[in-house]
Amino acid sequence: MIQSSSSPFLQYAETVRTEIDEALDRYTLYDDDCPSVLRDAIRHSLLAAGKRLRPLLVLMATEACGSQRQRAMAAACAVEMVHTYSLIHDDLPSMDDDDLRRGQPSCHVKYGEAIAILAGDALLAQAFETIAAGIQPPEVAVRCCHELSRAAGASAMVGGQVDDLQAALAAGNPDDLERIHRRKTGAMFRVSLRLGALVAEADDSMLAALDDFGRKLGLAFQIIDDLLDVRGDEGSLGKSTGKDAEQGKMTFPALLGEAESRQLAEQLIRQAQEALTPLDSGATNLQSLAWYVLERNH
Amino acid sequence: MIQSSSSPFLQYAETVRTEIDEALDRYTLYDDDCPSVLRDAIRHSLLAAGKRLRPLLVLMATEACGSQRQRAMAAACAVEMVHTYSLIHDDLPSMDDDDLRRGQPSCHVKYGEAIAILAGDALLAQAFETIAAGIQPPEVAVRCCHELSRAAGASAMVGGQVDDLQAALAAGNPDDLERIHRRKTGAMFRVSLRLGALVAEADDSMLAALDDFGRKLGLAFQIIDDLLDVRGDEGSLGKSTGKDAEQGKMTFPALLGEAESRQLAEQLIRQAQEALTPLDSGATNLQSLAWYVLERNH
Repeated sequence: MIQSSSSPFLQYAETVRTEIDEALDRYTLYDDDCPSVLRDAIRHSLLAAGKRLRPLLVLMATEACGSQRQRAMAAACAVEMVHTYSLIHDDLPSMDDDDLRRGQPSCHVKYGEAIAILAGDALLAQAFETIAAGIQPPEVAVRCCHELSRAAGASAMVGGQVDDLQAALAAGNPDDLERIHRRKTGAMFRVSLRLGALVAEADDSMLAALDDFGRKLGLAFQIIDDLLDVRGDEGSLGKSTGKDAEQGKMTFPALLGEAESRQLAEQLIRQAQEALTPLDSGATNLQSLAWYVLERNH
Repeated sequence: MIQSSSSPFLQYAETVRTEIDEALDRYTLYDDDCPSVLRDAIRHSLLAAGKRLRPLLVLMATEACGSQRQRAMAAACAVEMVHTYSLIHDDLPSMDDDDLRRGQPSCHVKYGEAIAILAGDALLAQAFETIAAGIQPPEVAVRCCHELSRAAGASAMVGGQVDDLQAALAAGNPDDLERIHRRKTGAMFRVSLRLGALVAEADDSMLAALDDFGRKLGLAFQIIDDLLDVRGDEGSLGKSTGKDAEQGKMTFPALLGEAESRQLAEQLIRQAQEALTPLDSGATNLQSLAWYVLERNH
C-alpha cells in the first residue's frame, strides 16, 4: 500500500540531508594544489541546494539493513559526486544545453565550458577516492568501487545518456524509452541502494529486495521528471522546463499521454514499496521516500 | 649513468606493448547496453597506436619489484584509460582544440563533441572498474583505486590542466611551469610506477625509489614534449605541433630556450636513473625506458 509521507519522516530526511551537505562541504575544501576556480566550480554545482535523493537512498538502505548510516556516508557522498558530475556534463551546450540547474546558472554558464568539463571530471575521479578512503573493510570498498564504476559506465549511465541524445532525433516506443532510463537514471538509483546494503554487509535477499526497489523507483522518478518538465515551473523545479518538447525528446508523456504516465508512475511506486516487504519495519523510511518521490514538486 | 637503448630492450618493450594492446582490446568489447557509437569512439581513441608509456611503467615497476607483470595488467590498462580520457577531453574545442591525435582525427572531430565528452567520461569510470575487478588482494585494489583517483583528481591531473589552460594567458617562470607539470603530467607518471610497486607488494624503500624515478621522468618527458612541439613534424608525432607558440602557452623552451631545456631534460633523466639504484639489476628495463624517453622522436 502507498503510505502517506508523515512529518516525522520529513524531519528525519531533513536531518540526514544536513549531514550529507556537511560531509560534501568537508570533501571539497581541497589543498593548495587545487586551483581556486576549479574548487569554486565544483562547490558551485555540488553544494547547490539539491534533493540529495541518491545519497539519501544510500544511507536509508544502510539503516534498513541494520547498520549506522555514518558508516556509509563516504559512499553516499560518492554517489552524489557522480550524479553532480553527470548533471554538469549533461548541461553542456553540446549535450542538453541547459542554462539553469538547482536554481542557479549551470556550471558552464558561470565558469565556462573548459572549467565545467574539468570540474565534472574531477568529481568523477573523487567519487572513487572518497569510497577508497572512507569505506571499510577493503573487500566492501572494492565492491562499492566496482559497482559504482559499472553504474556510471559505458553500459549504464553514460550509455543511457548517449542513447537519450540520439533518441531526440528518432521515433521510439515505451520499451526503447525504458531501456534508456534503466541505464541513464535507473542504474544510479539501483547502485545507491546496493552500496548502502553492501556497507551494512546485508545478505543477498536484502540486497535483491533493495535492488528491485531501486529499479522501480528509478523508473517512476524518471516518468515523474518527464511530467514535471511538461507542467513544472522553473522557479520551484530549479531547472529549465519545456526543454524535452522543444528538443523533440522521447518522453513518457509524449509516448503515453500525461494521464497514463501518471498511472504508470503510481503503479511502479506501489511495486517498489512491495519489493521492500522482506525488510519489514526497517524499510519504513524508504517506503516514505518512495511516496515523496511520487508527490514531489521539485 | 645514461645507458643506451639496446635492441633486446626494444624487443621486450614491443612484446609488452602488444600484451597491453590485446588487454585494452578485450576491455573494450562491451555488451549490448553500450551504444555502438560510444564503443566505436572509445576504441578509436584507446586502441589507436600509442606509446603506452604509462602502462609500460606500471608493468616494468611490477617486474622491478620481483613480481609477474600479468598481475598488474589491469592496473596498467586502468592508467592508459585515464590517460586516454584526459587526451580526449584536452583535445576538445573549449580546451586545447586539437584536431589530430595519435595520427588520426581527434575523438570529437570524428564523433562530435557530445560523444567525445561521454567517451572520456566512460573511460574514466572504467579505469576504476578495471582495477576493482582485476587486482588482488582487495587491500591492494583499494589502495590502487585511491592513488589513481587522487592522481587524476582536482589537486593533481585536473588541477594541472586548469592551471595550464590559464597559464596560456599569463607570464610565468620555470617554478610555476614545473608546478603545473608536476600535477598535469607528473602525477600520472608517479602513480603508474606506484601502482606497479603496490601490486608487487613492494616495501616502502622500493616504492619511494620508483616514486622519485617517476617524478623526475615525468618532468623530463614534459620538457621533451615541449621541445618536440617546437621542432617536431606532425607525421612522426601523430599530433598537431607548433600549437604551444600559437596559443601563447608557457613552455620550457619559451622560458629557458631550447638548449637549456634539453640540458635540463638530460639532467633529470640522469637523476631518474640514479633514483633506481636501490632496485639494482631489477630496474634495468626502467633504466632503458628512461633513455628511450629522452631520445624519442614520437
